[in-house]
Amino acid sequence: MSKIGFVGLGIMGGPMAGHLVAAGHEVTGYDHSAAALDKLKAAGGNTASGAAEAVRGKDIVITMLPQDEHVESVFADVLEHADPGTLYIDFSTITPKTSRWTATEGAKKNLRVLDAPVSGGEPGAINAALSIMVGGTEADFAAAKPIFEAVGKTFELVGPNGAGQVVKAANQLIVGGTYALVAEAILLMENLGADAAKGLDVLAGGLAGSKILELKRKTMLERSFVPGFRIDLHHKDMGIILAAARDAEVAIPMGALTAQLIAAARAMGYGNLDHSGLLLVAEALSKRDDA
Amino acid sequence: MSKIGFVGLGIMGGPMAGHLVAAGHEVTGYDHSAAALDKLKAAGGNTASGAAEAVRGKDIVITMLPQDEHVESVFADVLEHADPGTLYIDFSTITPKTSRWTATEGAKKNLRVLDAPVSGGEPGAINAALSIMVGGTEADFAAAKPIFEAVGKTFELVGPNGAGQVVKAANQLIVGGTYALVAEAILLMENLGADAAKGLDVLAGGLAGSKILELKRKTMLERSFVPGFRIDLHHKDMGIILAAARDAEVAIPMGALTAQLIAAARAMGYGNLDHSGLLLVAEALSKRDDA
Amino acid sequence: MSKIGFVGLGIMGGPMAGHLVAAGHEVTGYDHSAAALDKLKAAGGNTASGAAEAVRGKDIVITMLPQDEHVESVFADVLEHADPGTLYIDFSTITPKTSRWTATEGAKKNLRVLDAPVSGGEPGAINAALSIMVGGTEADFAAAKPIFEAVGKTFELVGPNGAGQVVKAANQLIVGGTYALVAEAILLMENLGADAAKGLDVLAGGLAGSKILELKRKTMLERSFVPGFRIDLHHKDMGIILAAARDAEVAIPMGALTAQLIAAARAMGYGNLDHSGLLLVAEALSKRDDA
Amino acid sequence: MSKIGFVGLGIMGGPMAGHLVAAGHEVTGYDHSAAALDKLKAAGGNTASGAAEAVRGKDIVITMLPQDEHVESVFADVLEHADPGTLYIDFSTITPKTSRWTATEGAKKNLRVLDAPVSGGEPGAINAALSIMVGGTEADFAAAKPIFEAVGKTFELVGPNGAGQVVKAANQLIVGGTYALVAEAILLMENLGADAAKGLDVLAGGLAGSKILELKRKTMLERSFVPGFRIDLHHKDMGIILAAARDAEVAIPMGALTAQLIAAARAMGYGNLDHSGLLLVAEALSKRDDA
Repeated sequence: MSKIGFVGLGIMGGPMAGHLVAAGHEVTGYDHSAAALDKLKAAGGNTASGAAEAVRGKDIVITMLPQDEHVESVFADVLEHADPGTLYIDFSTITPKTSRWTATEGAKKNLRVLDAPVSGGEPGAINAALSIMVGGTEADFAAAKPIFEAVGKTFELVGPNGAGQVVKAANQLIVGGTYALVAEAILLMENLGADAAKGLDVLAGGLAGSKILELKRKTMLERSFVPGFRIDLHHKDMGIILAAARDAEVAIPMGALTAQLIAAARAMGYGNLDHSGLLLVAEALSKRDDA
Repeated sequence: MSKIGFVGLGIMGGPMAGHLVAAGHEVTGYDHSAAALDKLKAAGGNTASGAAEAVRGKDIVITMLPQDEHVESVFADVLEHADPGTLYIDFSTITPKTSRWTATEGAKKNLRVLDAPVSGGEPGAINAALSIMVGGTEADFAAAKPIFEAVGKTFELVGPNGAGQVVKAANQLIVGGTYALVAEAILLMENLGADAAKGLDVLAGGLAGSKILELKRKTMLERSFVPGFRIDLHHKDMGIILAAARDAEVAIPMGALTAQLIAAARAMGYGNLDHSGLLLVAEALSKRDDA
Repeated sequence: MSKIGFVGLGIMGGPMAGHLVAAGHEVTGYDHSAAALDKLKAAGGNTASGAAEAVRGKDIVITMLPQDEHVESVFADVLEHADPGTLYIDFSTITPKTSRWTATEGAKKNLRVLDAPVSGGEPGAINAALSIMVGGTEADFAAAKPIFEAVGKTFELVGPNGAGQVVKAANQLIVGGTYALVAEAILLMENLGADAAKGLDVLAGGLAGSKILELKRKTMLERSFVPGFRIDLHHKDMGIILAAARDAEVAIPMGALTAQLIAAARAMGYGNLDHSGLLLVAEALSKRDDA
Repeated sequence: MSKIGFVGLGIMGGPMAGHLVAAGHEVTGYDHSAAALDKLKAAGGNTASGAAEAVRGKDIVITMLPQDEHVESVFADVLEHADPGTLYIDFSTITPKTSRWTATEGAKKNLRVLDAPVSGGEPGAINAALSIMVGGTEADFAAAKPIFEAVGKTFELVGPNGAGQVVKAANQLIVGGTYALVAEAILLMENLGADAAKGLDVLAGGLAGSKILELKRKTMLERSFVPGFRIDLHHKDMGIILAAARDAEVAIPMGALTAQLIAAARAMGYGNLDHSGLLLVAEALSKRDDA
């Protein structure tokens, strides 16, 4: 069992830290929110008064934070306060560039660094059923296995540092774009007199079939957009994808258009809806009375 | 068993007519190609010297033709030569508008009309495993069941006349767009140092998962684009989708961009490749030496 | 002076026919609308009871019609009833393909054919200030000069038959796209606290400057969208552009996206507004309270 | 006459600093490049050994730097070393957000701050013919007039701090998008048999007319892409535009697509060509043998 420092105990990080406690690890958590700290305490964890304290003297330091800038800030504490040899695992979804920077800077201090963004959302975090995309070395990946097993269902080493973020970006690109395509398909069917529910059943069973059609076609037709994964968060992820594409010198016209449709959803006030709510943007661009 | 006239014995129509012969129907076929006629004869069918002859005195008339204009031309013979009460089934992928026109004109002559575009491609036709999207009345759909069972694996009535084409258009919209998204995701991973094969494995298992990722991710990574379904044909289908969207007064920005990428694939000389070859367009827009 | 048959006496064709009468030509017009015929009579022209009568025994036959199908229909009368040697000038905006077809079919009957789409809209027609893009031979272009001088301010032979339509399509592509770009620029400035009026003044004077910024920036900022040229008509033209691009095997992603934004404007109920009303689509995709 | 510190003596900043010397100001410049410093000395300016020295004890501090990060870094020196009351003018093209940050932080130290991005490129800098878009207060704008008159031809106060950058972003959005549209129009004409040179003449004279058509149509047709303004720089600017749009919660689909086409141009190896070289991307997506 390991001594773990865990910074970022929000919707995702909170349940994940709880699973690590339950798995027998000694977890010391930190978060700005007192309520989040109380929850961890109630679950049997320790709490720290700041990131530095959470980081000091641990075998493993974990972060689960909203954006690049938060990771950069907490990682400064990791660089300063973590012991050489500490394994640093960042579950946050951030740019590959920042993940590579943590690896490069960490190496200078003899830290071992993995980027390990997850998919599966809040339910995945609660049910320890996350899918984890990991960037780093084989040895560090092997060392992190007990952690991944405690919080996730599947996990895979997909390349060197930063590669976890790249694969997560690729995932969000396809997911966002597929919602946009399904939205257009639904409106075509509804506005041209087809039975959209039956049509989507057919589509779900053929080459157009996808996890999204399987899970979301019913709620999309009902215009029920309870998250799930919020448009605001997907908007953040599209920013990462576009930055990564710039970095890679890869043009992604479909991804860029998807990003604008998601930005429009947010501008239209739908930021708190599930990302399947992209349907509402497509609807705004279509004839009303038939819909 | 029925007396069937079958016009259009190409890559798709040929095997379909053969299945109908095998199911015990009396099939009289017509096609411009003598070779196609010979094949049907060898399979036990009869051949006609023209569409008019194929249509005359039948219980059921079937067409499987490339484009709207061919359907319009053969349907003129149907209107002129088919007996009142004849069931007309059009398996072609054409615009909903033309399908609705066949229904309206057919009704004036007491013909019963179904639009029944298929997916599944050449293998689906050969193995009688097509998926069939049907537009028309319940009664006519019921009457056509023996035909659908002989050539398809699944078939569904998805609305009134034209609805089959609408659902087929929705299908092709999602399929084309998904290829474009997967292409961008692959290039992101390849150009940013991730292990694209492992990355796609992860994606295939999560919310980004799709039939396309399941079936095509390996060949796409290998740049193997043996059809399957040719880009030229998908280009034709995108024309139908855009025409349908115009008709429906639905804006489909993702579909329209996909159409241009497919048009580019064709312009670049890839028309005879599988539609997963859309990856080559994405590649042309990306940095070369890293790919 | 010439004996002219003129079919299509609408918003554009009416004033154009009037100018030809005023120039001393003997003009016999035809239109479905009795009011349009009365106007021509009042202007000193003759009226025919149908297209065939308008076409028979003339030196020059002119059409100014809404769409390909109308030109096809009237041109059938031209083929049947016009004398060999007649000069046929089509001022309609249609697909290059149909224009080339009139030339090919016309040649078989010894007709001389020019496609001559115009820009300048209703004011241009009324003030005989149209700009005319002509496809055909040098000789026929020379023969048509008196006609062009009577209705237009500038006219140019831009290539063989169909080339007039191609250049018109290129014109509408740039005009539609520029409106979309200016709309995005305006919303950026308005939502980020810049003085949009002053900003547009600066833009109009630099490399971003355009006829559209010169003529429309004030009304766009005021959200005044009195046509000018209606969105419905630009929507029709985008259909021509996309068809031409398909024909040419040229991918036009910017044009295709513009077409969808214009389609959205129409679907949103703005079809009767000036095409600068594309701003309302951009606005629908942006944060409201700041705009 | 003023004591001026000038940091950033590159292609743009070098000639601008020279004009200020010529106008009688006492200019102390700093740049990483020794050659740039030598040039300023030769022109009659003083040189500093670092930004701090260039900033200390001046009436006016000017920066002309490539990116946000360079401005942030030099502005840290301004905050630390400039006297209260100093007028800080940033001619760099950066994000509105960073410009607003310089204003906010500067105000805390009693500095007066203007963002003043320019257009006109290297020739504009050399000929003191820049167009300057200024964000800040009326009073500071008035104080800066002698500076603007020395380096520019036109200058306009377009709003509060950051507004200069917003208008510059709007400018680059329209310029980039117009190149993309003109490229598509050219390829349509070339591939459909129109005389593109004559066609562009007609377009330049009508509603499609623009400064870009006026200045660049000839070189574009000749495929001559000598900069002018390099694609690499426009790529940088598109990043600013997209960041600003995110900030503003404005969806800019046309801008986003333009950004991808420019990114593609760069990925294809055309980063050092003039931005009119966007034509080469359009060409890559079109049929070859006809072009």
